[in-house]
Amino acid sequence: MKALTGMRWPWRALSVVGLACVLCVGVLVSAAPALAADPSGAETLADNPSAPVDYVWIIVAAALVFIMQGGFAMLTAGLCRAKNVVNLMMKNLMDFTIGSLAFFSVGFALMFGADKGGLFGTTGWFLAGDSYDVGTYLLFLFQVMFAATAATIVAGAVAERLKVKAYFLYAIVICSIIYPVYGHWVWGGGWLSSLPYGMGHVDFAGSGVVHAVGGFMGLAGAIVLGPRIGKFDLKGKARAIPGHSMVLAALGVFILWFGWYGFNAGSTLSASELRTAVIAVNTTLAASAGAVSSLVVIYARTKKLDVGMALNGAIAGLVAITAPCAWVEGWAAMVIGLIAGVIVVVGVLFFDRIRIDDPVGAVSVHGLNGVWGLLAVGLFADGTYGNYTTEGPFVTGLFYGGGVEQLIAQAIGVVVVVAWAFGLGLILFKLLDVVLGGIRVSAQEEIAGLDIGEHGSSAYPNFTVVEDIPYLMASAVEKDGGK
Amino acid sequence: MKALTGMRWPWRALSVVGLACVLCVGVLVSAAPALAADPSGAETLADNPSAPVDYVWIIVAAALVFIMQGGFAMLTAGLCRAKNVVNLMMKNLMDFTIGSLAFFSVGFALMFGADKGGLFGTTGWFLAGDSYDVGTYLLFLFQVMFAATAATIVAGAVAERLKVKAYFLYAIVICSIIYPVYGHWVWGGGWLSSLPYGMGHVDFAGSGVVHAVGGFMGLAGAIVLGPRIGKFDLKGKARAIPGHSMVLAALGVFILWFGWYGFNAGSTLSASELRTAVIAVNTTLAASAGAVSSLVVIYARTKKLDVGMALNGAIAGLVAITAPCAWVEGWAAMVIGLIAGVIVVVGVLFFDRIRIDDPVGAVSVHGLNGVWGLLAVGLFADGTYGNYTTEGPFVTGLFYGGGVEQLIAQAIGVVVVVAWAFGLGLILFKLLDVVLGGIRVSAQEEIAGLDIGEHGSSAYPNFTVVEDIPYLMASAVEKDGGK
Amino acid sequence: MKALTGMRWPWRALSVVGLACVLCVGVLVSAAPALAADPSGAETLADNPSAPVDYVWIIVAAALVFIMQGGFAMLTAGLCRAKNVVNLMMKNLMDFTIGSLAFFSVGFALMFGADKGGLFGTTGWFLAGDSYDVGTYLLFLFQVMFAATAATIVAGAVAERLKVKAYFLYAIVICSIIYPVYGHWVWGGGWLSSLPYGMGHVDFAGSGVVHAVGGFMGLAGAIVLGPRIGKFDLKGKARAIPGHSMVLAALGVFILWFGWYGFNAGSTLSASELRTAVIAVNTTLAASAGAVSSLVVIYARTKKLDVGMALNGAIAGLVAITAPCAWVEGWAAMVIGLIAGVIVVVGVLFFDRIRIDDPVGAVSVHGLNGVWGLLAVGLFADGTYGNYTTEGPFVTGLFYGGGVEQLIAQAIGVVVVVAWAFGLGLILFKLLDVVLGGIRVSAQEEIAGLDIGEHGSSAYPNFTVVEDIPYLMASAVEKDGGK
Repeated sequence: MKALTGMRWPWRALSVVGLACVLCVGVLVSAAPALAADPSGAETLADNPSAPVDYVWIIVAAALVFIMQGGFAMLTAGLCRAKNVVNLMMKNLMDFTIGSLAFFSVGFALMFGADKGGLFGTTGWFLAGDSYDVGTYLLFLFQVMFAATAATIVAGAVAERLKVKAYFLYAIVICSIIYPVYGHWVWGGGWLSSLPYGMGHVDFAGSGVVHAVGGFMGLAGAIVLGPRIGKFDLKGKARAIPGHSMVLAALGVFILWFGWYGFNAGSTLSASELRTAVIAVNTTLAASAGAVSSLVVIYARTKKLDVGMALNGAIAGLVAITAPCAWVEGWAAMVIGLIAGVIVVVGVLFFDRIRIDDPVGAVSVHGLNGVWGLLAVGLFADGTYGNYTTEGPFVTGLFYGGGVEQLIAQAIGVVVVVAWAFGLGLILFKLLDVVLGGIRVSAQEEIAGLDIGEHGSSAYPNFTVVEDIPYLMASAVEKDGGK
Repeated sequence: MKALTGMRWPWRALSVVGLACVLCVGVLVSAAPALAADPSGAETLADNPSAPVDYVWIIVAAALVFIMQGGFAMLTAGLCRAKNVVNLMMKNLMDFTIGSLAFFSVGFALMFGADKGGLFGTTGWFLAGDSYDVGTYLLFLFQVMFAATAATIVAGAVAERLKVKAYFLYAIVICSIIYPVYGHWVWGGGWLSSLPYGMGHVDFAGSGVVHAVGGFMGLAGAIVLGPRIGKFDLKGKARAIPGHSMVLAALGVFILWFGWYGFNAGSTLSASELRTAVIAVNTTLAASAGAVSSLVVIYARTKKLDVGMALNGAIAGLVAITAPCAWVEGWAAMVIGLIAGVIVVVGVLFFDRIRIDDPVGAVSVHGLNGVWGLLAVGLFADGTYGNYTTEGPFVTGLFYGGGVEQLIAQAIGVVVVVAWAFGLGLILFKLLDVVLGGIRVSAQEEIAGLDIGEHGSSAYPNFTVVEDIPYLMASAVEKDGGK
Repeated sequence: MKALTGMRWPWRALSVVGLACVLCVGVLVSAAPALAADPSGAETLADNPSAPVDYVWIIVAAALVFIMQGGFAMLTAGLCRAKNVVNLMMKNLMDFTIGSLAFFSVGFALMFGADKGGLFGTTGWFLAGDSYDVGTYLLFLFQVMFAATAATIVAGAVAERLKVKAYFLYAIVICSIIYPVYGHWVWGGGWLSSLPYGMGHVDFAGSGVVHAVGGFMGLAGAIVLGPRIGKFDLKGKARAIPGHSMVLAALGVFILWFGWYGFNAGSTLSASELRTAVIAVNTTLAASAGAVSSLVVIYARTKKLDVGMALNGAIAGLVAITAPCAWVEGWAAMVIGLIAGVIVVVGVLFFDRIRIDDPVGAVSVHGLNGVWGLLAVGLFADGTYGNYTTEGPFVTGLFYGGGVEQLIAQAIGVVVVVAWAFGLGLILFKLLDVVLGGIRVSAQEEIAGLDIGEHGSSAYPNFTVVEDIPYLMASAVEKDGGK
């Protein structure tokens, strides 16, 4: 280590990278003999002549889910202040890049490897050995995008005050362990999927697995961090801290919505499931309904046509339809979306009231509506479609004569996902707080902006960035650092 | 109603949403018995083993058309002023969300339901009953994107002065009635498609159905509203009001162009039509040619390399190739695009001269070039491809020995679409003007920006927005409100 | 000519466009009789019932590659200054539009036409005659996007000082001749592809053909132009000239990455090659690894978390994996990306040290990593996949017992591509410099920004753009125009 720090920087840097390479080669060597799989795809094609359309479908859907990273980046940046944009862009880029390598190394094996007691998977590390197979790679491709989506949701809730290094470590942990293990329980053949109620806990495209996990970890992060300086006045009343670009926020929502067609319809994992058409329509209608109802509600409350809330309402509708998208019809998707739009407004106002500062509303959008989506399956599933298959048994909710069975399975999943994500989130962020000597930047850095403090640069060097800095400074003095 | 206004807001809001839900459940109950269709897709797949590739194609194409909403949002925002961006983002978001729910409820049935006398359709409301079918949902998915595209075109022409509420009502009407009825005439088996000339009026992907409808409704809106304050000086000479971000405008064009591959090539509605390759190439060449020729023309006129005009030229080429894309070869697509680029420049200058203020050039881009695209079919169609099929009879234009027959059918369609869209547009905007006590914001609001007046917020709170406000105020005084 | 300049502008403009049309019609007439191909697609479908999925795949992949233009536009704009954004948007738009028409007219025939002595192709001009065929159009669609990508890479290296007209001429030359001829050697059946070492020179998706060509032409342009005023201080030490929007830069990278799934996986040109799954995963891992390692290295060097470098690191990883994407497994993709991230940082610092000013790092990202990608094939190719086919012989590199044969073929390609692109680049830019009386804008224009000088407009008229202009003026005086 001494030797390392003594070297000139390029050699030091190269040494680190070299070390990583050697590690990888180690994996290779141990894995090399095991090529029993189909890396070229020749056998897979021979076995299944209709594989090409599935591969096209999943790869395109995965690309659509990927671009949601850009959507989240724009939405989060747009809803935050200009002085923190470099920091947000770095977090958004690195949660994907660090997270995908973590999911590649560890997470995928835990989530989709050979099941161990319904708890986690145990094979497929580094996609090596028998996992060097076109089918396994295809599954990884789609799933790594989902893992990264869960990771990036948290960025909004902890925005404008979390240290970058804490975020990097968080991204490793969520993508290696927290997300994959819960994911295994629902999608990897784990215990939640085999609950003895209804069809077991089901979550078509991840209202719970992705969004509730992200949303409730975000809640934990926001609580551990405390509110931003200036968010609450001396009486504890929430002040609006407007985001710096509504056009970026809107762009982010359009990109997210676009990507969601891959997220939901691609979750069939097979082009032969023509139910994709229903899924895509439901996705559209729920998003539209969410935007409309959230605008109606916020207008009723404030008499203002709040575009930020309408944008969040659209995402809320998308989150809520994600679990039930394959099991409900169009009108139900609209109703689910309408309710989602109400939930997001009530949620944002509620967290403001209890003084939890979630800068972009991520907890209400992804957490609360993730839960709503899971429950909606138990209510609206209409008994026309099975579990990723046209063959029965079908998923049937309360309103279609399915009784409360499915609703119970969904409710159990809700309790588990909230406990898992919020609980581990609290532990993780507390632990990071101790290990790193604080996960929150200093009050000085926060007021000046994380871009200067953490990155030594500005997102907009050719523009004059303005803000009510004296107010923030006064707040910081009053509240002793805002924490 | 009194009871409603007396309630605390969350309950009031919930009541409204609840009412909507109950209405929907009503539809459900009445529709529930009619499940004679194929909601799971099992039968559709059994009947047609090659359905999966069609479904993949249409869903991906629909997603591409969806992201054009983001493209329009960026282009319109970029070409307008910073003080109106919140307002524009809201309009762009809500025309899709409100419009898609309107098209779901009413429009789709009018457009594609069982034909009534060649005039409109009559089945498929709320996609319920027999419409709960994967094939019907798939068609809806693609078509709802088109309806919303037509709706959003108008936003640019009426930008920076139309009240939000008027826009919301407009969006409902265009997506429920104006667009679907005309659409039925061309694409739903209506009278225009069976004109006794050539192949009847044809419009492959909607130069007329989508773009001319949007463009000429926009013209009506721009006329009813009158020009923005400061657009014309005392002598009536047009002043440039530069848009606030050329980078957003450019991004918008790239996104639109990207989405147009789905718009045009997806309009085959079948992956087995390999003509998609020709369509996509033609789309590319026409857009390129439009940008080049508009830049040449504007440079010849002004000696300035006007990027806004080149961007509009690309869109003009795309609009013009939309109708003929499947029936012409590459060189003809280039010629069509070259002419489109000229048309857009001449159009923009013409509307400036006759004092109609179309802030983003939407009428020239979508209206005039929509017409040009329809006519181009009658000239350049080369007789190698039929009406969405490789089987004859083929569409053949004047230059390929088809005589004037097809050109006549196209010209009739042009007259009808202009009369329908412009006429109903005038009536609608005049009516809204009366009903709402004015559809234009006050001069004060217009000068200060619609973001403050209508939304109580700013798109860029961290930046200082600058404009020549004294000039605008003087203009307002001189012209008594600019109207 | 006199007659032309005497006309009123609209007629003059129309004349120019008219002339172009007549030229095209000339092509048509000569080409018309040769319709021996399959323009409707009916025969192609009859011959190959699985064609639809291939067409869907290639069209969607082509659209994904298209949107990379938007990604490059955002990335380049974000990394440059606000005063040059109109200029950059024009260049980004016009290199595609001019370039695609050039590739349509000439380039495609040179690249993919009937081979002449291994040097260039000779058929398919204007896609006319026998080329009016769905299969040929499909190939053109995908390839025109690649040609335009090569063209647009150069924009970054010559940014903020190259005259627009020089750029237009450059775009014509690269898309008609420089790119297609080299492309023919590798992908069109030319001499490099049949080198007697290993499988001949191979380049799966264009680390060399696209990125190294663009990168080394960019290097030539940057050298001929000289550094921007103010880039180097009196002692020759590089100063950072920060880009004007890190959020646009980040958006650009997300869009590029998204498009790269089409770029790499689409290069199979067939959906039946299920190796696409491996390709897409490798693309993901290399990009992630590139971002991580470049961030580690720059942090080790500067102690700053430089988001610009991390963004470039992701692109570097994408460039490097582009050639080997189909021939390596996941861990190797990660290693290739890790090394790419190091290369980009070292490259950027190296060019700074030798006083070559590449505003966005295009040479390091695309040039150096293009070379690295070509060589990586010779090292990491694992012998499980052939040349765009699951059938052998397979591409095998040094680390998998393939000896140095393949590495030699790759090294020869590296020498050729660098010599070709850099050599012709130097000649071209020098020639343009002579012909146009200088390819660089005046010092006055450069300091004021190219937007004012070349376009008479500003990208951000509603914002006050700030910069240390006195410093630039002083630099200009000292260095006599910075050249």
